[in-house]
Formats: sequence, C-alpha cells, structure tokens
Amino acid sequence: TSSSSKQHGGQKLLMDFPYVSGPHKKLMVDLVSTVEGRLDGLLNPCSLPPDVQSYGNESGTSHAALHLRTGLHSSPIDFILGSWLHCQLPTGGALNITSLSAYLNSSTDAPNLLVELIQSSPTSMVLILDLPPRMDLVLNPDYLKTFYEDTQLDQHRQRLEKLSEVKPYFSSSLYIRSVVSPTAILVRIETEQLEEMIETNVAPIAKEVLKTWLDICAFGERTVGDSERDYLRKRDHMAKSKTIEIDLGSSLPRLFGQETANRVLEALREVF
Amino acid sequence: TSSSSKQHGGQKLLMDFPYVSGPHKKLMVDLVSTVEGRLDGLLNPCSLPPDVQSYGNESGTSHAALHLRTGLHSSPIDFILGSWLHCQLPTGGALNITSLSAYLNSSTDAPNLLVELIQSSPTSMVLILDLPPRMDLVLNPDYLKTFYEDTQLDQHRQRLEKLSEVKPYFSSSLYIRSVVSPTAILVRIETEQLEEMIETNVAPIAKEVLKTWLDICAFGERTVGDSERDYLRKRDHMAKSKTIEIDLGSSLPRLFGQETANRVLEALREVF
Repeated sequence: TSSSSKQHGGQKLLMDFPYVSGPHKKLMVDLVSTVEGRLDGLLNPCSLPPDVQSYGNESGTSHAALHLRTGLHSSPIDFILGSWLHCQLPTGGALNITSLSAYLNSSTDAPNLLVELIQSSPTSMVLILDLPPRMDLVLNPDYLKTFYEDTQLDQHRQRLEKLSEVKPYFSSSLYIRSVVSPTAILVRIETEQLEEMIETNVAPIAKEVLKTWLDICAFGERTVGDSERDYLRKRDHMAKSKTIEIDLGSSLPRLFGQETANRVLEALREVF
Repeated sequence: TSSSSKQHGGQKLLMDFPYVSGPHKKLMVDLVSTVEGRLDGLLNPCSLPPDVQSYGNESGTSHAALHLRTGLHSSPIDFILGSWLHCQLPTGGALNITSLSAYLNSSTDAPNLLVELIQSSPTSMVLILDLPPRMDLVLNPDYLKTFYEDTQLDQHRQRLEKLSEVKPYFSSSLYIRSVVSPTAILVRIETEQLEEMIETNVAPIAKEVLKTWLDICAFGERTVGDSERDYLRKRDHMAKSKTIEIDLGSSLPRLFGQETANRVLEALREVF
C-alpha cells in the first residue's frame, strides 16, 4: 500500500475514514470524490510528507490523516484539504472529526467551501457546512445577492432548523463566527438515530451545498481587478492563518504531543 | 403639550411608549434617558418635522413616533434614533416595535448600537441587541478582540441562551444577519410571563450592553487615519441605506399608506 498511497498522493489514507459510521464515511467519500472528480486536471498531487499525511500519538490513542492538494497556477483553486481525526477520550468515548475544505485563489473572489462533522458521542454531532465569503458582505450587497440570495442557500439551513433533533451551534471562537456566511449551517444534532439522520438529511444537504460551490464558485467566472486581488490576498491570508491557529493551534499539541503538532502545523502553514 | 413637545424636540412623544407593558416601557425609557444623559451636550435637538415625529394611518389603527438627534460636528456621534410603532393586526392582536439605535461618525471606527423589541403577541417577543461592527472582522482580528472579546459581550448571549423560553432568531434578511456582530443577541422569547422576563433578564442585559457601548464605543478614544475615514463613510453609508430599505422600505407603505411612508422615509434618508 506504500506505493499505491504515494501514487494517489495519500488519497487512499484519507478515504479510509476508518473510525466513523457507514453513512458518515459514505458521505465524506462522496464529497471528496466529487470535488476531486470535478476539479480533475486542476490539482497537483498531495505533496505533504508521509508523516503528515498520517500521524498519531505515542500511546496510539489518537490517529489522523491529512490530504492536501494545491491547485495548478492557472486554476482558480488555492488548495483543497480533506482530513479525519480520531481520539479516544478519557471518558471511554471517542472524538471523531472529518472535514473537507476548499480555498480559491485571488483570481476569483468567489466563496470558499467548508464542511466539518464533529462527533463526540454516538448520539451527538456538530455539523458545519458553509461557503465562507471572501468579501465584506456589508460593503458588497451584490456579492451577497449573487452567492447567498440567488443560490437560495438558506433553504438548507431552514430545512435542518425545522427538525427537533437539530439545535443552532455557536462556535466558542468569535473569529470563526465572523468568518462564516449568514447562511452557514452551524448545528448540533442530538439523536439516537444519528446514522439515519446523516443519510436522510445531512448527506443530501451537504451534496447540494457542494454542487452550488462547484457550479457557482469554483467554476463561476468572476472578473477581479488588481486592487481587489491585493485585498483578497490579504483577507484570505488573515482568515487562513487565524483559522488554523484557532482550529489546530491548541488542540493538536494536546492530542498528539508538541513534536507531532509542530510537524503538522509547519507543513500546513506552508500552504495556508 | 405642543409647545412642550417642541421644547424637548419630541422626546416626550417618544417617551410615552403608550402601547407596551410597564416593564417594556420602563426599559425603553431607561435606555433612552441613559443615552441622552451621557451624551448630553453632544446632541442637537430633534429636527424631524412634527408629522414625522408622530404619524399614523388614516383609519387610526397604526401609530408611530420617531425621535432623532444628530451629534454635534465635533462629537463622535452621527445620530441617535428612538422609535415606537403600534399596529392593530387584522387577527385582533397588535404589533408593537420599540427601538433605540445609535450611529457613530467617521472620527471613530467603534461599533454602533442597536436595540429592538418586536412584540407580535402577548406571549412572544423578538429581541435584537447588538453593537454592530463598523469594520470587516475577518480582516481586523484586533478590532474583534477590543470590542467583542475583551468586553465579554458574548456572556449576555450565553445567559439568555440557557433559558428554555429563549430561542435563536434568524432575520429573514441575509443583509441584516451580515450587519450584526458575532455576539449579537437575536432571540425569540416565548412565555406567558413576558413582563417578568423583560424585568429579570432582558432589562439587565440591555443596560449592560448599553453601558459597554457608552464606555468603550461612544467614549472610547480611537485614532482613525484619512483612508480609514473614507472607508468608514462608504461602509456606514451602505449599511445605513440598506438597513432603512430592509427595515422600513416595504413595511411602512403597508402599515401607514404610501404618502405617509414617503414622508417618513424621506426625512430619515436625509440623515441616514
């Protein structure tokens, strides 16, 4: 499997999603395959070092995989990042996080993609699903109209909101709350039938949001002037470096030890 | 009362809050008095025409009051606006909205103030309480830290979130959702004991948020360069004109007829 994982740039490692339920794995494989399929020919192979593509802690209770592919210089893609993370909890349970994010470069101002499923118990899951804007929406109502109103993205949030098992989720980070769009799905799902909920509600919605991102954002033709490019580079850089700091800066050392955390964060910072 | 209302620049009309419950009126009077007290000497008298300070519809089922005071040119205040609105509903109930907002000018980049209580039944109220930011928070994490993290504004939202009678409220306007801060209180309160809820929870929190706004925003010394001033003017103008369009553009004609709506909107647009 060493040569095949090299060949696929670590995609196989990611696609295992070994610790999550069938419907959860099926959804993530579907999303990653769809993105890689549609962006085929625009992406470089994953160039992360093998010990960043897959890493664990010394005692073997934490394990994670990262799959990162930058876009060709001529493409609108900055990079896509898929990941999973598994940690046994001292309480006997486990924390499982799977994510897929996609960042566009400054040749377009279209929104990014963010999908994250955070499961901390068999009956509870936090779902984050959004196209984070890359412009200040207050100053740019046309941008809000194009990417959020005309796409009717809010209907997905409204559909989930109606379910009694679903409650709004507020990130403890005010910065993360600022980064997301007004149609962001940020919810906690509490149910004994989590697998069914993923199949029936989460998966169809996540696929729809991904389709919108691919059609309107990744492949939407946008004209961006020079000064706007500078602005996008600055804002994107700030958003990415803050996001990585908040998401991983404190949790990775805690879960995997300082040495491994440094190795992973260093590799990611080269791209972020 | 005509000469006294002239003398107080229409403040008396506003301060009546004639259609809402005791605790609701008490809270609004307290907030308006506190703002006018602390900003005393920085504000011009209300210069709205009398038929904009108070207006109604032909059949007498809708009635409203507006009280708007601009800031002296040397002050950091653009204007403050207090209002109440009462409409009998065809269902037999009534809609009552009371609000207080304060906008700063481009001599400072500190957040504005927004308080709105929307009561559409005796047992249900929407509460909007926020210090809307005047900078893009994604690009300006220091601003987020100063005004939202260091002030611990989120603790008020968290306190309300814990109450079973309180549910998150999502504005139907994506623009309004974009204008508010990540610590915004946007909730629907459903309870038979609405007056008690206002006294026990809403009033203390609203007063705390107002105190933060006065201490840190209205009287916080901020240094703003020339290019930032231009940016603030542009962003403020966009936020104000969109807000008035969304808030009043369609509802005022419906509730008060086109002629009255035009008169009120024209007077407000001169300041917004």
